[in-house]
Amino acid sequence: MNYSSVRFVLSRILQICSALFLLPIIVALFYGETILALKSFGLVAVVLFLSASLASLKKPAKLLLRASEGMIITFLTWLLISVASAFAFMLAGEIPGFVEAFFESVSGFTTTGSTIIQDVEAVSHFALFWRSFTHFVGGMGILVFAFIITSGSADSVNIMKAEMPGPSFGKLAARLRTTALVLYAIYFVMTLVTIFLLYLGDMSLFDAIIHGLGTAGTGGFSSKNASIGFYNSSYINWVLTIAMLLFGVNFQVYFVSLTRGIRQGLKSEELRWYLGIYLSMSLMVFLDNLRLYGSPAFSFEHSFFTVSSLMSTTGYSTADFTLWPLVSQVLLLLVMMIGGSAGSTAGGLKVSRLVVYIKSVREQISKTREPRQVSSVRMDGEILPDPVKQSVLRYLSIYLMFLILGTLLVSFDSTDIMTSFSEAVTALNNVGPGLGAAGPTSNFHQFNDFTKIVLSFLMIAGRLELLPVLLFFSPKTWKATT
Amino acid sequence: MNYSSVRFVLSRILQICSALFLLPIIVALFYGETILALKSFGLVAVVLFLSASLASLKKPAKLLLRASEGMIITFLTWLLISVASAFAFMLAGEIPGFVEAFFESVSGFTTTGSTIIQDVEAVSHFALFWRSFTHFVGGMGILVFAFIITSGSADSVNIMKAEMPGPSFGKLAARLRTTALVLYAIYFVMTLVTIFLLYLGDMSLFDAIIHGLGTAGTGGFSSKNASIGFYNSSYINWVLTIAMLLFGVNFQVYFVSLTRGIRQGLKSEELRWYLGIYLSMSLMVFLDNLRLYGSPAFSFEHSFFTVSSLMSTTGYSTADFTLWPLVSQVLLLLVMMIGGSAGSTAGGLKVSRLVVYIKSVREQISKTREPRQVSSVRMDGEILPDPVKQSVLRYLSIYLMFLILGTLLVSFDSTDIMTSFSEAVTALNNVGPGLGAAGPTSNFHQFNDFTKIVLSFLMIAGRLELLPVLLFFSPKTWKATT
Repeated sequence: MNYSSVRFVLSRILQICSALFLLPIIVALFYGETILALKSFGLVAVVLFLSASLASLKKPAKLLLRASEGMIITFLTWLLISVASAFAFMLAGEIPGFVEAFFESVSGFTTTGSTIIQDVEAVSHFALFWRSFTHFVGGMGILVFAFIITSGSADSVNIMKAEMPGPSFGKLAARLRTTALVLYAIYFVMTLVTIFLLYLGDMSLFDAIIHGLGTAGTGGFSSKNASIGFYNSSYINWVLTIAMLLFGVNFQVYFVSLTRGIRQGLKSEELRWYLGIYLSMSLMVFLDNLRLYGSPAFSFEHSFFTVSSLMSTTGYSTADFTLWPLVSQVLLLLVMMIGGSAGSTAGGLKVSRLVVYIKSVREQISKTREPRQVSSVRMDGEILPDPVKQSVLRYLSIYLMFLILGTLLVSFDSTDIMTSFSEAVTALNNVGPGLGAAGPTSNFHQFNDFTKIVLSFLMIAGRLELLPVLLFFSPKTWKATT
Repeated sequence: MNYSSVRFVLSRILQICSALFLLPIIVALFYGETILALKSFGLVAVVLFLSASLASLKKPAKLLLRASEGMIITFLTWLLISVASAFAFMLAGEIPGFVEAFFESVSGFTTTGSTIIQDVEAVSHFALFWRSFTHFVGGMGILVFAFIITSGSADSVNIMKAEMPGPSFGKLAARLRTTALVLYAIYFVMTLVTIFLLYLGDMSLFDAIIHGLGTAGTGGFSSKNASIGFYNSSYINWVLTIAMLLFGVNFQVYFVSLTRGIRQGLKSEELRWYLGIYLSMSLMVFLDNLRLYGSPAFSFEHSFFTVSSLMSTTGYSTADFTLWPLVSQVLLLLVMMIGGSAGSTAGGLKVSRLVVYIKSVREQISKTREPRQVSSVRMDGEILPDPVKQSVLRYLSIYLMFLILGTLLVSFDSTDIMTSFSEAVTALNNVGPGLGAAGPTSNFHQFNDFTKIVLSFLMIAGRLELLPVLLFFSPKTWKATT
């Protein structure tokens, strides 16, 4: 690794990111919380800016950023910004312990939405806003943000790559800066529309913003202890069901729709699989828990809401699905693991990878039937190149390794497998609530510090698509190169 | 599919297999159960032989056996011989219902060892012998048996391939018939030694044979309700711990040791991984449940026994491991899924596949660090060819598909995920006992018929390494070809 390049770029990024910590202060102005916000987020912003500036003083003779340096920078950015955010929570007096404050920050930035705060409704406005704002920033990528602010050299591509969710089959990144700006604009507009529609419902403007930001990043932090269940409103439930689903769509679909027409945009194969999986899973869950609630309409609404929430890995809840029949719960775990589309703000394995896995099963069948047949897996009509196919297949091994190791490590702090497995699933796929004792009505406060640290690393691993975290823990990475 | 070839070969194989049903009658002679044995197993042997002879009368003009026909023949052989065995159990009055009798037969032939018989000790000797004998036959392959009896044409290779456990990296199959005979001889000798060593302990000759056959096939049916726990003997426990472990070793190791010296045999990379995983897993389980039992010696003995039993996918039990700490239980599930070595009688994913998965994770890391580096995965020092590597990677998708679908389907008949997931794991990997309500002290009688049929198919799928069952359920397979 080229240490001086990593140090320099990392500190420049953190310098820019320090500005983010000023935003909660503006919110605090409206609610008479200015002093407290200044003493916490203001202080952190200043300290972060100064120390980052100090670290970036000495410019390396030649910037060298290969893919691995890019990934390490990405990982460290996410780690350090979460540490900074943890200190802000502690200074604001909202979360006393560092591990809990760090967990909450990681959960925010990675758009997971698991919380350790037991009474959210008692938290000050600026801190609540910050929690949800971390979802918004984390959803599209902290580094993409920094990238747009700065000029954006060719090297930055390597950094951004690490943060982009899902395998990239297309050639979207041709003119990277313009593309990023257009995508950010789409993201902003969709978020504003969601906030507006929520505001039209029963929500106050503040709550609409909180839940709008949480939906945009497919995060799931709420300003209510009962999450969306608090509102008990079909209108809000359906607005969010559709909004969460839309934020789980590959943004390339929107981009292509804008630039080359909706007809072209809708041609995406991943989109059709995504919607197909969503509808069939929702329907199965609905049929399975039909007997549970008195009215079919009630079951229908909550089934479609919950599957949208968990598949988009948002994690808002309107019903306690830990009480649903076991088949529904297994389906929900499955949906959490599949996750949203590549190139969306959602987590999970990503639908496009699942499609490759399904197609490779088919490939194996037809290869068995006709051994001499040249095998191929097609996406959007084009044959997937062998290296891409192999790396997608390899990804499954890495994913399972994280899932198994995570389950094992959190099992020390649990007595049943539903709790420990779903904890690992919900963290690794950036969902939020789990099942068993980690369900939507429970709180992650109950787990010990070791579990919280394991889950924090799983969340970062999931958000950055595993490789940066693997690299971080591989000793060879830390060998100095020039 | 070439129907006439499949019909002809299938009926010839079943003709030979009908002879197997005569063996229990010999056992019955010793215990005064001859009439009952004749009325059940004798009758089935005759009917099977006659109907198979009838079906094989018309020889096809040209025998055409491609890989897919071979797989379908294999699958149908296993299915039909289990049906025949089910009728024998029913006629003997040991198991009244067909689904239960079929489940027990499949569990025997696939060397799983899950039972629906609630009081094994009340079952007649010849039926008990048959149960354990199915393990012995199923362990090395029903078709390999038929193959040795008949001359063995080149086409038979395609049939045997489907039944061979694990990916084959070596070139063992050069002179197939001789090799098969040597392997069978090793298998026989090892089984006899095991029986002898058990007989030296507290066991009666009959029980020694039962448990010897069950160990050889890594099956796990016992003649005692409390399984090996009945004997409460450290000597028997350690004999079985080592025997089960040895039957989970790739038989290529023994073959090479015999033909080219032990030093060459021990060079196998899979062997080292297998032993390494066994020892480290046993040690971790031992440390985790150290506090549970009063004496460390007791924990040590039962931890090493249980891990050997579950990793070799035998399934004998001396302790109720559903009462162990959760971490141990997760480790046991993991060990069940890994399973034994390729080319052994054990089930599971196989250690050699796991090694490829682990190495492909490493490959991904080094590829990320050095994108231009030519990547390679080596086994026993040689680079794994791309098609082999890809098919091993694809296998993981297929395996997970079966595991997830299985868990989902048996969840209708369960209220907790530990039970339903471990049911699917234990069936798909041919282990025997599961965890939760499917643990070693429970009985599969408690589950409904639908669950038993799903588990039966999972057992066959696991034993035949998934592809034959996939092919069977793929409509295209059934298109007639000439």
